[in-house]
Amino acid sequence: MSSFQRIGLIVKQPALQQEETLSILVQLLEERGLETLLDESAADYARQLGIKPTPRDELTQSCDLVIVVGGDGTFLNAARSLADHEVPVLGINLGRLGFLVDVSPEEIPQQLGRVFNGDFIEEERKLLKTEIHRNDEIIGSFYAMNDVTLHVRDVVRMIEFETSIDGQYVNIQRADGLVVCTPTGSTAYALSGGGPILHPTLDAIALVPICPHTLSNRPLVVAGDSEISIRMCGNNRSSGQVAFDGQDNMDLLDEDQILIREHPTPIRLIHPQGYDYYHILRAKLRWSEQP
Amino acid sequence: MSSFQRIGLIVKQPALQQEETLSILVQLLEERGLETLLDESAADYARQLGIKPTPRDELTQSCDLVIVVGGDGTFLNAARSLADHEVPVLGINLGRLGFLVDVSPEEIPQQLGRVFNGDFIEEERKLLKTEIHRNDEIIGSFYAMNDVTLHVRDVVRMIEFETSIDGQYVNIQRADGLVVCTPTGSTAYALSGGGPILHPTLDAIALVPICPHTLSNRPLVVAGDSEISIRMCGNNRSSGQVAFDGQDNMDLLDEDQILIREHPTPIRLIHPQGYDYYHILRAKLRWSEQP
Amino acid sequence: MSSFQRIGLIVKQPALQQEETLSILVQLLEERGLETLLDESAADYARQLGIKPTPRDELTQSCDLVIVVGGDGTFLNAARSLADHEVPVLGINLGRLGFLVDVSPEEIPQQLGRVFNGDFIEEERKLLKTEIHRNDEIIGSFYAMNDVTLHVRDVVRMIEFETSIDGQYVNIQRADGLVVCTPTGSTAYALSGGGPILHPTLDAIALVPICPHTLSNRPLVVAGDSEISIRMCGNNRSSGQVAFDGQDNMDLLDEDQILIREHPTPIRLIHPQGYDYYHILRAKLRWSEQP
Amino acid sequence: MSSFQRIGLIVKQPALQQEETLSILVQLLEERGLETLLDESAADYARQLGIKPTPRDELTQSCDLVIVVGGDGTFLNAARSLADHEVPVLGINLGRLGFLVDVSPEEIPQQLGRVFNGDFIEEERKLLKTEIHRNDEIIGSFYAMNDVTLHVRDVVRMIEFETSIDGQYVNIQRADGLVVCTPTGSTAYALSGGGPILHPTLDAIALVPICPHTLSNRPLVVAGDSEISIRMCGNNRSSGQVAFDGQDNMDLLDEDQILIREHPTPIRLIHPQGYDYYHILRAKLRWSEQP
Repeated sequence: MSSFQRIGLIVKQPALQQEETLSILVQLLEERGLETLLDESAADYARQLGIKPTPRDELTQSCDLVIVVGGDGTFLNAARSLADHEVPVLGINLGRLGFLVDVSPEEIPQQLGRVFNGDFIEEERKLLKTEIHRNDEIIGSFYAMNDVTLHVRDVVRMIEFETSIDGQYVNIQRADGLVVCTPTGSTAYALSGGGPILHPTLDAIALVPICPHTLSNRPLVVAGDSEISIRMCGNNRSSGQVAFDGQDNMDLLDEDQILIREHPTPIRLIHPQGYDYYHILRAKLRWSEQP
Repeated sequence: MSSFQRIGLIVKQPALQQEETLSILVQLLEERGLETLLDESAADYARQLGIKPTPRDELTQSCDLVIVVGGDGTFLNAARSLADHEVPVLGINLGRLGFLVDVSPEEIPQQLGRVFNGDFIEEERKLLKTEIHRNDEIIGSFYAMNDVTLHVRDVVRMIEFETSIDGQYVNIQRADGLVVCTPTGSTAYALSGGGPILHPTLDAIALVPICPHTLSNRPLVVAGDSEISIRMCGNNRSSGQVAFDGQDNMDLLDEDQILIREHPTPIRLIHPQGYDYYHILRAKLRWSEQP
Repeated sequence: MSSFQRIGLIVKQPALQQEETLSILVQLLEERGLETLLDESAADYARQLGIKPTPRDELTQSCDLVIVVGGDGTFLNAARSLADHEVPVLGINLGRLGFLVDVSPEEIPQQLGRVFNGDFIEEERKLLKTEIHRNDEIIGSFYAMNDVTLHVRDVVRMIEFETSIDGQYVNIQRADGLVVCTPTGSTAYALSGGGPILHPTLDAIALVPICPHTLSNRPLVVAGDSEISIRMCGNNRSSGQVAFDGQDNMDLLDEDQILIREHPTPIRLIHPQGYDYYHILRAKLRWSEQP
Repeated sequence: MSSFQRIGLIVKQPALQQEETLSILVQLLEERGLETLLDESAADYARQLGIKPTPRDELTQSCDLVIVVGGDGTFLNAARSLADHEVPVLGINLGRLGFLVDVSPEEIPQQLGRVFNGDFIEEERKLLKTEIHRNDEIIGSFYAMNDVTLHVRDVVRMIEFETSIDGQYVNIQRADGLVVCTPTGSTAYALSGGGPILHPTLDAIALVPICPHTLSNRPLVVAGDSEISIRMCGNNRSSGQVAFDGQDNMDLLDEDQILIREHPTPIRLIHPQGYDYYHILRAKLRWSEQP
């Protein structure tokens, strides 16, 4: 018997473009006698069914499983809204395998059947919590499941910033930016910036400089419970911007401080049995099975 | 006897901060009986001497040598304004060796003395000319001595663009951007992006992708007379920006085309005898003399 | 009418494994009334046909076209033996596209038909000539079409060596080695070592350090007519080895000097019409047509 | 009062070259009334003092502190011999700061005085234990504090090998080699190969491919308790070699398997108060204090 009774669906917009996948899913949930809540991201599809969509806040509080239908981007957005709840989440892709959305549409009946029978893998993924400090005030607070990216706002200059970890001064560097990522985020933007792949079970955070002026400013990997502080230096004529999972963002001023720690509650990922991280890695990075 | 009679001075602003260096220079030129024109960048210093500064246009047309006092950035700015004249240019740094400003203040009397005696090295450096096309119209035309940098405008997304060289399709890539640089520019921003060092005498242009999504999108070096075309793809929700030597820049729209060719007239660099490119490279990249 | 009358065939060994491809080829040449010489690399196949194979020396002197059947490695080996002759060479792969062997077996009749009708592209590729000097004597002389690779012989230590270009001191570095490559070789071993892609028409040579101790020791690209000198330092307890196209090699002692220049006669590559370098690049580097 | 009563000295050979540093050290230990054992690496110095050197085995069993005088290489050698004992170890450099030998000769009296007063920092560093399997037999067993490096033996070819982690297949790759390193080793050879910097307190192991043929084969960081298996593929005409801290090594045959796990007992590093990892990092990587 499944422990999941009330299922929330969060969907890549416009949801009607995913109508076919959603129909298979909704029918399966019905047959199983499970209650389905359609998130506001599925408003257009809900309207067609004559159902009222559920606001995200309500959905994340009342569900005991969230299913995301979309790409990794849709998943990241959903995950951040689950940060303060302990609802597990499962990802269905739209035909193209993702790191987080690892169930393909054609596998829905079989794979979800097994999940609802209690036959699944649960995995914890680190979430970062960031506070932006300005003049001793917290002016913003954000979650990120992939990465917190400090970046120059105006492309024609580098920014200068000072990094400290657990109160210890690391360096001042000039660069286009710095990606602070979780293991989940290590295969996203940080990889393009030259960062290493961190296995999802590794309790670590990586700092990957983007186009650093000093060539020996290399990616640095620190323990997962580190507190990372980045302070904008005072001489950045064009100042920076900070982005969260490449989705939310905020402009910075000189002397602003970005404080990053892991969030106490991780994201609970649900995979069907047979989940194989390295298989996804090989597929996404186009590693030959046989070179 | 020197072939240089009328010398223009272009200075990093505010020029009064470089007063000491400028005084040594102006006095030397006077003693030599050479005519000195102060560029408008030296307006504050000129005012103090009771001289009228010369507009840049006039200066570049009437001088037979331009001396730049400042950093490599000041030099690049000066060089672009010399693009359509064949005036040689010499760079004096403000105490910190540059790739282009290779005479240090304390060496001015000796080194410039020799230059005015006709004892110098002249070197040609490639200049790029870029046209921006929109809907079959040229909407902008720019020079660059270091690099033409296409970059995403909004940091939270990559841009997608198509590159062709001499009419041949190369690839479509998703990245933060692309640096198209001369050998001179290969040790500037392109190096931070993972590009190779191109010796200044090499007749080549490098294309260095910035944080490319596909990890095998590596720097590409092509012949110096290549015509490089970059077309913004039509699906960039946040479009790009293009910068010239990191100084001028212009916003782009989807489907805009950037067309880059070498300018027919190179920049004529004047170095004192003993100029040694590899010496500057070792100093700037902090290569040990003995590891 | 074709200008090629006497065709030499050089084959990846054992040639009998390529019997099917060779038969198609030999038959086509016969039908065309062209004379075919089988290289000693095809000795087993020649024996089966009851023909005497031609020694390589004789073959390269008497043919007016050499066809190589194999992979890029077979082609490189053949090309080096053509260094002092001006015989053009064409490459047929064994089912897997190569940078140099760009005609696939199933295309033989059509593509070679056109080539023999005079409808082809001829391209020149740079060849490097290396002399090894020890105590003022030349102790070895080698050709390379891809690369000259200096490498530590015993993997547990780095080597130290001094590089000069055109008589100018560049640096002393400690590394696993250094790859000196032609544009042709830039997509081979040098690429794995972090080097740039050099377009085949670029008149350049690249120096790519392998695992350099100093992180700012980056790939350097110099003009194609540069003379590159690498001197083994005197303190290498385990000395180096130098390899040519990864095929020939020679052990080095401390103080040995490697002198590399371009060979005056380039290799003449024959491609069928429609040859497209970037197409091969996209295929080999697995660049998506649409990311 | 110090808890250290019997101190072993291990020295870079020939020890007599470090006579001055050793004399200061021996005198300090005498004044403190501590017993000093001179390792066989200091045999020449011991002879001069008329003392009998102590065999390494005996020394590591009977000391309660080992002091290493030399470079990081000397320290690694000493540390491996301490693998099965729980003796703490402290490093004195010979004038050039190392990652492991962080006390400079001139600081000996002050810093060691404080250490012997019980005023020090103790830090645990991971040690790797490797078994080499051939035909179901263990043919070798080695320790490494920095890294286990698989490398091609003959430089002119790549090797092919299959990696699994905790029994899960990761990939088959062709490369010059693979470095498996601890956080301590991440700033040694692995860094030259493009690996990330791992903070010493991170419980992780990194796998850094050396010159991989597939450009997306990037460094991978896994949890510190992972079991890493590397199997030589069966088609390596020139087979591999495996090295431990770049000091011990062993030749491999096709189908040999390298099995790497962390050793249950870590190395106990003793630092004087004020030890600052990032300070050493900045010094060794030549990061500017102010760019």
